[in-house]
Amino acid sequence: MTPPTNISRLSLNQYTTFSWNVEDATKGCQRAGLSWIGLWRDKVAEYGLENSARVVRESGLQVSSLCRGGMFPADNKSERQKRIDDNRHAIDEAATLGTDTLVLVCGGLPNKDLEAARQMVYDGIAEIIPYAQERGIKLGIEPLHPMYCADRNVIVTLGQANDFALQLNTAFPEYQTPVGVVIDVFHVWWDPQVFAEIQRAKGIIFGFHVCDWITPLPDVLKGRGMMGDGWIQLRKFREAVDAAGYDGPIEVEIFNETLWAMPPDDVLELMKERYLKEVY
Amino acid sequence: MTPPTNISRLSLNQYTTFSWNVEDATKGCQRAGLSWIGLWRDKVAEYGLENSARVVRESGLQVSSLCRGGMFPADNKSERQKRIDDNRHAIDEAATLGTDTLVLVCGGLPNKDLEAARQMVYDGIAEIIPYAQERGIKLGIEPLHPMYCADRNVIVTLGQANDFALQLNTAFPEYQTPVGVVIDVFHVWWDPQVFAEIQRAKGIIFGFHVCDWITPLPDVLKGRGMMGDGWIQLRKFREAVDAAGYDGPIEVEIFNETLWAMPPDDVLELMKERYLKEVY
Repeated sequence: MTPPTNISRLSLNQYTTFSWNVEDATKGCQRAGLSWIGLWRDKVAEYGLENSARVVRESGLQVSSLCRGGMFPADNKSERQKRIDDNRHAIDEAATLGTDTLVLVCGGLPNKDLEAARQMVYDGIAEIIPYAQERGIKLGIEPLHPMYCADRNVIVTLGQANDFALQLNTAFPEYQTPVGVVIDVFHVWWDPQVFAEIQRAKGIIFGFHVCDWITPLPDVLKGRGMMGDGWIQLRKFREAVDAAGYDGPIEVEIFNETLWAMPPDDVLELMKERYLKEVY
Repeated sequence: MTPPTNISRLSLNQYTTFSWNVEDATKGCQRAGLSWIGLWRDKVAEYGLENSARVVRESGLQVSSLCRGGMFPADNKSERQKRIDDNRHAIDEAATLGTDTLVLVCGGLPNKDLEAARQMVYDGIAEIIPYAQERGIKLGIEPLHPMYCADRNVIVTLGQANDFALQLNTAFPEYQTPVGVVIDVFHVWWDPQVFAEIQRAKGIIFGFHVCDWITPLPDVLKGRGMMGDGWIQLRKFREAVDAAGYDGPIEVEIFNETLWAMPPDDVLELMKERYLKEVY
């Protein structure tokens, strides 16, 4: 048997067990001996914010992050303002749920002007920093795989996310690193610059997510694999992130219809086994 | 009516009209008033190499490129040698077909060691350079979209392709730029560095391909769109490539089941119209 300390950093991102509501997922994590859970806003809304906060608090689990804020670019000012307001709600929810980290999926293109959309992301994050700081929430920019550039996130490399985080932190010297990056291996593993950028992210790594890249890719959105089933050098990434000073939770976030059809408790057991074999 | 000179650089990559064999495609290009065609090895093999060379020669069309060499990484030496031999065949075929450019799709992962696979690509290209030069063929490294990194091409950015081409050209000072890059907007449009890298590619741009990125992506492999139907700033790319000194053919290469189901002559008309509206 593996001593439980080895999984002390392992966190279930609740999308990995999609059929479970917040309470189910909380209880599942307890049964599996986990210490962390990562939450999604839609799942929290479905179960109710206060109810979610209560069951998580009562479970003793720590919340590694809330997914997601972001989605800043929009074609007109009033829509952009709506997005800002929604990010403020996300920050409130994160605080209520007891996590210190809001993951930002920054948003896709409102029109063909990619550079303008990237500027809207920068400006949007800058606008929510003071409110996030007031509520004790750090903002983690998650670069997404370039295949999501048009419709989900114009921030597509860790280099870009680092640039934004470092610039924003410099622009707000009154706060201590309000912005950082969330590194998900699925999104960044292909990048020839990624290990250099992980080193550069020292001190601003706010989250680390693992899963795997399987082939043929089953689906653009729901195509992630269980650790060990694909092509990513997971341990190498975990060691690089550790070497850059990150010692926080490691979330397993897998969107995959086959895993979603399995009994969720079995998914958690498989996840623990693969985490110890492939990641830790 | 648009004067025909405006489409003087337009080339039909024959995969855009997938149902046509080489002769059909050649005749279709003539009917459409095109001057260029881009060929694929499987289509050429299906119609016969000598027959293909003859119908193309008789048509007066110029062959913009032959797709594809590459596929270098493999788990053992004998398999890697087979790939090298196949590249020599591809070089022979390119010479027979009367093009000066072989497009390299460099190959995916034989195992999880991404760095080793990239080294195998470098070594493989180095090995075929003398033979390619002997036969009058330039080698164009085409970076593919990162979503193909595991199974098709570990070369995923124009920066990487430039690095390889520039290093290889330095390693073979006896030849004049034996290696260059082929830039397909579908593969590189998302890259924050792409316009800097296009400038850096000055003098080694061996091909330029256009299509569009449509959402939702219909399919990982057959998900490309007709120019103007998606999100890419096509004219900006064409102007950047021109500014870097490229004045060669512009291939339209679209893998898309909906377009493949249309009458191919209609696809060519649409392609010309969109090329003039969106690209040129």
